[in-house]
Amino acid sequence: MTVNTEQTQQSNQPLDGLKVIDMGQVYLGPYCGLLFGFLGAEVIKVEGPGGDPIRFQTRAGENPAAMMLNSNKKSVTLDLHDDTDRAAFLELVADADVLIENFRPGTMERLGLGFDDVLHSLNPRLVYGSGKGYAADSECHDAPAMDFPIQAYTGLMAVTGFGDGPPVKSGAAITDFMTGVHLYGGILAALHERGKSGMGQKVEVAMQDVAHHALASNISGYILSPDNFVERAGNSQGVLEVTPYDIYPASDGSVAIMCLVDRHWASMARAMGAPHLATDPRYEGNIERTRRRAEVDAIVSAWTGVQTRSEIFAALNQANVPSAPVRQISEIARDKDMVKRGMITEAPHPELGSVPVPGSPFRFSRHANTKPRRAPAAGEHTNEVLGRGPVLDSASNITSDITE
Amino acid sequence: MTVNTEQTQQSNQPLDGLKVIDMGQVYLGPYCGLLFGFLGAEVIKVEGPGGDPIRFQTRAGENPAAMMLNSNKKSVTLDLHDDTDRAAFLELVADADVLIENFRPGTMERLGLGFDDVLHSLNPRLVYGSGKGYAADSECHDAPAMDFPIQAYTGLMAVTGFGDGPPVKSGAAITDFMTGVHLYGGILAALHERGKSGMGQKVEVAMQDVAHHALASNISGYILSPDNFVERAGNSQGVLEVTPYDIYPASDGSVAIMCLVDRHWASMARAMGAPHLATDPRYEGNIERTRRRAEVDAIVSAWTGVQTRSEIFAALNQANVPSAPVRQISEIARDKDMVKRGMITEAPHPELGSVPVPGSPFRFSRHANTKPRRAPAAGEHTNEVLGRGPVLDSASNITSDITE
Repeated sequence: MTVNTEQTQQSNQPLDGLKVIDMGQVYLGPYCGLLFGFLGAEVIKVEGPGGDPIRFQTRAGENPAAMMLNSNKKSVTLDLHDDTDRAAFLELVADADVLIENFRPGTMERLGLGFDDVLHSLNPRLVYGSGKGYAADSECHDAPAMDFPIQAYTGLMAVTGFGDGPPVKSGAAITDFMTGVHLYGGILAALHERGKSGMGQKVEVAMQDVAHHALASNISGYILSPDNFVERAGNSQGVLEVTPYDIYPASDGSVAIMCLVDRHWASMARAMGAPHLATDPRYEGNIERTRRRAEVDAIVSAWTGVQTRSEIFAALNQANVPSAPVRQISEIARDKDMVKRGMITEAPHPELGSVPVPGSPFRFSRHANTKPRRAPAAGEHTNEVLGRGPVLDSASNITSDITE
Repeated sequence: MTVNTEQTQQSNQPLDGLKVIDMGQVYLGPYCGLLFGFLGAEVIKVEGPGGDPIRFQTRAGENPAAMMLNSNKKSVTLDLHDDTDRAAFLELVADADVLIENFRPGTMERLGLGFDDVLHSLNPRLVYGSGKGYAADSECHDAPAMDFPIQAYTGLMAVTGFGDGPPVKSGAAITDFMTGVHLYGGILAALHERGKSGMGQKVEVAMQDVAHHALASNISGYILSPDNFVERAGNSQGVLEVTPYDIYPASDGSVAIMCLVDRHWASMARAMGAPHLATDPRYEGNIERTRRRAEVDAIVSAWTGVQTRSEIFAALNQANVPSAPVRQISEIARDKDMVKRGMITEAPHPELGSVPVPGSPFRFSRHANTKPRRAPAAGEHTNEVLGRGPVLDSASNITSDITE
């Protein structure tokens, strides 16, 4: 683990003492709960009898993604259509600080567990966080929403890809994760307010709204110049006139390079051993360079193509020019530097031996980050949390904790 | 504006009373400050004498993106190398709750404004939020970082695009926005802790860590099956065997459709007027359909191709199958439903008449969202906030507030 060097360290965490019921499914809700867990809250993942659907999205065994999203949580399986289980659930909620859910709209109400009618009266201090695809007042509020269609609907796809090709989604489920952290943020704001009013409330965040906000630079470009707007510019700049700005060949892959301002170009010219390019009037200023983009890109490619990504990255870091190797998932999945920093640790997996799981993205000066506890099997803590008796045998196949 | 219907409304906001010094630049820091402003905090944007660089990233006039990111803030311009201005800054920080910055590492220390040495002693209750590209303990900590190279370094680009083409960035500056909201979330956690300890602290969030976490599904797919991992699958599914899952032609563009589970396919078959397809053994189950992807996609395309996006979206919503129109920026920039919901309002712009700016993505049951106040001109509130005298003439060209 990384050791924070500032201030006196404490082994406690900023959200110690909070109790969170995490009914999240797949990515959005569970990521919200994961952040609470990183920060010291007690997070109880309440799953249906079959468990969070993400657990079974693969052909063989537990989905590694389920383990990545549910570190530090306890798991309780409950059939909320069953009276005994429903009563147990209400008992959990009665002294919880937070409830997280990202079900389809109306699901909690159909279960007789709506915030307004039931949960708020049961526990007036409860902060109820609801993650949705479309907002309750959206014209699409009843449309089934997942990351992929939301990327389409909001314009995230429209701006991604090459101008001569189709729109393409981000390969990561970005609207799920972005909305999960916004939901966490909305809940924290409500907890802050509860500190003054003593009252909980409901907070809702919709994927469609969060995605829209992330498009500010693209919308800005369109507003500024609707007729000349380049919607998709591949890896170059559609909105601004900036050159070089692209990925360039290396001997072992490719490298992203951007010369946002002219001093980047001057510095890069020196790094390329061609300082005269910095003062050549043909390449002076981003507007001139963008006009001669093909020429400039050829000059850059001739320099990058014969070097490794690491060599280029080192030279351009030295020159203070923004660049980075384009890395593959095989390189980042267990990236050594991330492991060294405690941002990736290994959790045991029944079939795969172990699975890399993420650490807290927050670094506090007065709290040291701790190693995540492995994600529970579905229902592993049902009896412990509900005080029902011995732990089920079915969970006993996973006993060890996360190892470094 | 949308009116929340639950509970008694209050005109206050959850973070009323907090004072935030927002030294953020471009997207990351300003988005963090924007969220604080939406939630009722007093946000004072402290800019260099020239203003936040994003203001000038266009050829003509104020960048609309600067107006989108800085609603509800006051602007104070200060030259932190000047002794008088530095003293004024320290006076602002002395009774602030939060400071946000996303400068290059070491900038605040070089200004003599480091957290450990100066600001923490000046104001022990201050929560200091620092957004960085690479973490302080990363091997790349001194590399210049911006959204594009971070997308390359972290693998976000590797998973985006088509298998037979190059990696491509998300056209939106997603790592900036994702990190901005994580930083907001880290600061809120520290404020929560301050409620108990009375002490502020520093919290740092790095774009590289936040981006990594959003790749859980992709990393999971790689870990599960490193040899058969499809890194880039365009608009289809690389990790899971799911068909249909793609964008399909419509008479007026294209539509994203995904049949994540078999009941989606059965329902879609009925919607297409071909219920026999639901029980045809050639298409039974996602694994069989994925084996015959080209065939299935041809069947779907034949149905979608002769309809508009709206017709397809309506039919598939009715059938409970996840889908959405692939929309362009020209459609979403001033989307009527978003305007109706108060998620987009218009702010006056000197050259463009007005610019659409986003509303709060948080919906609380006890706080009605309010119309954002327009972003200030650089330095518009310097004299007001510092008590230095009359407002500068230079800011008087923007006087009206945001209009609906």
